[in-house]
Amino acid sequence: MTTSDTQRQVEETLTDEVLASFDGTENPRLKEIMRSLTTHLHEFVREVRLTEEEWSYGIDFLTKVGHITDENRQEFVLLSDTLGVSMQTIAVNNEAYEDATEATVFGPFFVEDAPKIENGGDMAFGAKGQPAWIEGTVTDAEGNPVPNARIEVWECDEDGLYDVQYDDGRRASRAHLFSDGNGNYSFWGLTPVPYPIPDDGPVGQMLNAVGRSPLRAAHLHFMVSAENLRTLVTHIFVQGDPQIEKGDSVFGVKESLIKEFEQQAPGTPTPNGREIDGSWAKCRFDIVLAPETA
Amino acid sequence: MTTSDTQRQVEETLTDEVLASFDGTENPRLKEIMRSLTTHLHEFVREVRLTEEEWSYGIDFLTKVGHITDENRQEFVLLSDTLGVSMQTIAVNNEAYEDATEATVFGPFFVEDAPKIENGGDMAFGAKGQPAWIEGTVTDAEGNPVPNARIEVWECDEDGLYDVQYDDGRRASRAHLFSDGNGNYSFWGLTPVPYPIPDDGPVGQMLNAVGRSPLRAAHLHFMVSAENLRTLVTHIFVQGDPQIEKGDSVFGVKESLIKEFEQQAPGTPTPNGREIDGSWAKCRFDIVLAPETA
Ligand SMILES: [Fe+2]
Ligand SMILES: [Fe+2]
Repeated sequence: MTTSDTQRQVEETLTDEVLASFDGTENPRLKEIMRSLTTHLHEFVREVRLTEEEWSYGIDFLTKVGHITDENRQEFVLLSDTLGVSMQTIAVNNEAYEDATEATVFGPFFVEDAPKIENGGDMAFGAKGQPAWIEGTVTDAEGNPVPNARIEVWECDEDGLYDVQYDDGRRASRAHLFSDGNGNYSFWGLTPVPYPIPDDGPVGQMLNAVGRSPLRAAHLHFMVSAENLRTLVTHIFVQGDPQIEKGDSVFGVKESLIKEFEQQAPGTPTPNGREIDGSWAKCRFDIVLAPETA
Repeated sequence: MTTSDTQRQVEETLTDEVLASFDGTENPRLKEIMRSLTTHLHEFVREVRLTEEEWSYGIDFLTKVGHITDENRQEFVLLSDTLGVSMQTIAVNNEAYEDATEATVFGPFFVEDAPKIENGGDMAFGAKGQPAWIEGTVTDAEGNPVPNARIEVWECDEDGLYDVQYDDGRRASRAHLFSDGNGNYSFWGLTPVPYPIPDDGPVGQMLNAVGRSPLRAAHLHFMVSAENLRTLVTHIFVQGDPQIEKGDSVFGVKESLIKEFEQQAPGTPTPNGREIDGSWAKCRFDIVLAPETA
């Protein structure tokens, strides 16, 4: 379909008219955002020659996304995640800084006030899965150790579910700890497994319609904060997880965040003497924090 | 803020990765739409360097839009309307065709099964306002009269409210009629008045934050359909209405749709002998329908 010059002018004039309607916006940042958003939405409509039926479908889709959303289910976040909009926002706000550890999506499963554990402690709190010893050092971009960095960690159990997805109010597989005087940290967690994002709603239908899997590559969440350093929200991924190749449903994987979980045969002595019946894994994750102002 | 080449590459690579995730989409039209939407959303985030706080605000805003939406209130339509996205969709789907009457927004107040009236009948059904005699001829683009065209008309009362906005289930100020054997039609309606779109929700807050009025320029809705001709959804606006200059909140006004409502002094005989106590108005609106395939 070709668009005549007259028609193009009608469409451009309309966009200009809408942009001009924001001239009276007092907050300059709001004005900038509304102008850019309007420009891109109009370009989208014009580019695909959106039909009125498709527009209605879109209104309907957003309505369903709104209606399934409540305190426990955030379908707009899932939509943003699966369109890579969340990850693009992360990218824009966490510009690469020398060797600083890369950031990735926050996700919907963080909980404030997770229990504190000591270094070497177990964050699983009874959640099922293969035990994994995670250790590393927190440093700044110059290589200086960062003592007393607050490290929040959370992950799903071997059934692919976070504690908050159970109805029984359990708190498991999440904790916070602090790096020691030399910036070192260590804890027992679980070897991560892939899990699907909630896919029984409109976002799941969208993924299905475009032939995409709701599975996330296996990962363990970290949020690391320390004075005068940029807070890092990230994951580590499991080297060899086939879902990395197939594609993470929210585009969170970065090469630098894929770590080896070295498999240890049953009976292999553990770093802190913990007795484990079966096999376990060992993973090293050194964390480099960028300066706060970077 | 300048963006380094490395950073730009990170951001572009991410967009490419998301676009590639739609490669398996079986429906080619869905694929085209998802790719274009993703591209523009990512460009928006990158262009304004959207902060994570602003992203959260956006998620929150959409959640509120979703939660206020029900069978009687469609806040997503209001959002689309006030950002000119609805009008741009109309523009894209109703390309100018010779002298065919221009289209404008449908709006949220149409109701199926409005009562049928004869030519010269009254569509107000007791709704308050200045009586207005509307008449015209329906023709095709070659000037041939179109007999038996179905004409749906609806508008608000003098208080700026549509019947569906009252709680008492009333049906008023809406009807359908048919053009006669010569393509002529006529009916009694009300001289339109400006009214605010519902502004007690998140869209109203947005309009307030950007310093815009929720008022729509005064108008009377038409939907005209006839065999083998393109269905026309439009309004007529009232010449001299100051809201036309100030700006219609949904960008629906087109020069060609502004019509004179000629004021008639009390006592002026009416076209069909109807007795009216006060003043009334007279408006001519000739309707030209494009071919269905145009
Ligand atoms: Fe997760
Ligand atoms: Fe209206």
